[in-house]
Amino acid sequence: MADNQEPGQLIIIGGAEEKDGDCKVLREFVRRAGGTKARIIIMTAATELPREVGEDYTKIFERLGTEDVRIIDTVTRDDASSSTYLEAVGKATGIFFTGGDQSRITSIIKDTELDTLIHKRYAEGAVIAGTSAGAAVMPDVMIVEGDSKTNPRAEVVEMGPGMGFLPGIVIDQHFSQRGRLGRLIAALAQQPAVLGFGIDEDTAIVVNQNVIEVVGSGSVTIVDVAEITHSNVDNLLKDEPMAICGAKLHILPDGYRYDLKNRKPILERIIQPLAAA
Amino acid sequence: MADNQEPGQLIIIGGAEEKDGDCKVLREFVRRAGGTKARIIIMTAATELPREVGEDYTKIFERLGTEDVRIIDTVTRDDASSSTYLEAVGKATGIFFTGGDQSRITSIIKDTELDTLIHKRYAEGAVIAGTSAGAAVMPDVMIVEGDSKTNPRAEVVEMGPGMGFLPGIVIDQHFSQRGRLGRLIAALAQQPAVLGFGIDEDTAIVVNQNVIEVVGSGSVTIVDVAEITHSNVDNLLKDEPMAICGAKLHILPDGYRYDLKNRKPILERIIQPLAAA
Repeated sequence: MADNQEPGQLIIIGGAEEKDGDCKVLREFVRRAGGTKARIIIMTAATELPREVGEDYTKIFERLGTEDVRIIDTVTRDDASSSTYLEAVGKATGIFFTGGDQSRITSIIKDTELDTLIHKRYAEGAVIAGTSAGAAVMPDVMIVEGDSKTNPRAEVVEMGPGMGFLPGIVIDQHFSQRGRLGRLIAALAQQPAVLGFGIDEDTAIVVNQNVIEVVGSGSVTIVDVAEITHSNVDNLLKDEPMAICGAKLHILPDGYRYDLKNRKPILERIIQPLAAA
Repeated sequence: MADNQEPGQLIIIGGAEEKDGDCKVLREFVRRAGGTKARIIIMTAATELPREVGEDYTKIFERLGTEDVRIIDTVTRDDASSSTYLEAVGKATGIFFTGGDQSRITSIIKDTELDTLIHKRYAEGAVIAGTSAGAAVMPDVMIVEGDSKTNPRAEVVEMGPGMGFLPGIVIDQHFSQRGRLGRLIAALAQQPAVLGFGIDEDTAIVVNQNVIEVVGSGSVTIVDVAEITHSNVDNLLKDEPMAICGAKLHILPDGYRYDLKNRKPILERIIQPLAAA
């Protein structure tokens, strides 16, 4: 719930979340953004089909009972200073980044007034969510693009600046569905973060300060390279295969939690309240 | 090298090994099986195209200088008692299982005279190799079939008895190329072994007693669940997602070695002899 001056939450979705039926992941977003009283902004910067995508999400959020839903379609950086947009975002309790191309989000919004304002709303308690490309932009360093179904090599992934909502980690999406372990590890090896989150489709991590909770039908794969015993990364040319020894691996489904500060799963299962069933 | 009464070696290949050009992985098999003096048997039980597949491998092994290459195409269990076949296998220094369907290998050969004899030749020093389906059959419990690109759930993999050359582990093949982390972990969770080896295409593990060495252009992903801090596997229904906390993950490319007994990578790089370059 926003407007209570507690820090906000992030909902980082691995793409292809269920849009008919129960909509468990999107339901979680709406509930945490304020439920039927939420004021939701749909950010369509990533997609080349902003109208269709925006309207699809609008219908879902309205079906769940939220009356105040607005689409913001920034096409240029100028759009990201539009006073109409800024006014709407200034009141938002939930801001949702759609899928598409993550570079479009950063190139249009990063370091604009809109960017500053979204971060301000987040600090004030708004929920920031993103799916697929909208998930990719959450860290300070993001996967711009890369190859799936490969072993880790430097050349399989291109990194770039992200939106910085969750610094110090790496996010990959469509994780199991596209076979992205190699890509996640290649990304991890190329910047200072030691924690990589591979988020499955129809699955999200809810980040509430240092506690991460998994929601959805798939799993979240966490690779922790903080205490590796060996890596050959410093000596590699671009097309050579990486070696990593002693990484830690956790695979967490719905209801599991993870302590981001101590880098450990929280091993008591959550009992879901009936309302969230 | 066989016929020296030292125990044999296994060469377990993740499929799609290079068959033109340098043939690094197949070259390793031929060299270890006795080089130009090797007596090689190609076992085509797994494939429905035994003639084509057998002839392809014959050409490669002959190109590398081995003159004594024979194809054994067991179609029925009766074939696996053929005295001609048994005589040939009794003298073999290298036995190579082709790809295809791993169930065909076990259903035709397991617990036959041929099976007993191959194990005897292995104990006497022969090199046993297998690619793809031929790799899958190496453990005592094998992946019969399963889904790729999924998170781990019991239903994604079917296990069955393997040929038992390398007990106590799980092998998966085409690992990175088909996105099989979830499948490997689902397999690991369903039998007593704690070590899973995901072998990439054009990549092999050479097993020489307790030392495993990686050869080829891809990587070997090792998942060690011996010291996990949590798993939900005992309470799961078939379609529910598994949780695994605190598994160990190693990704090892060509030249890296692993100590099977102590379950640790051996962290001195091998300097390849010029001949193997």
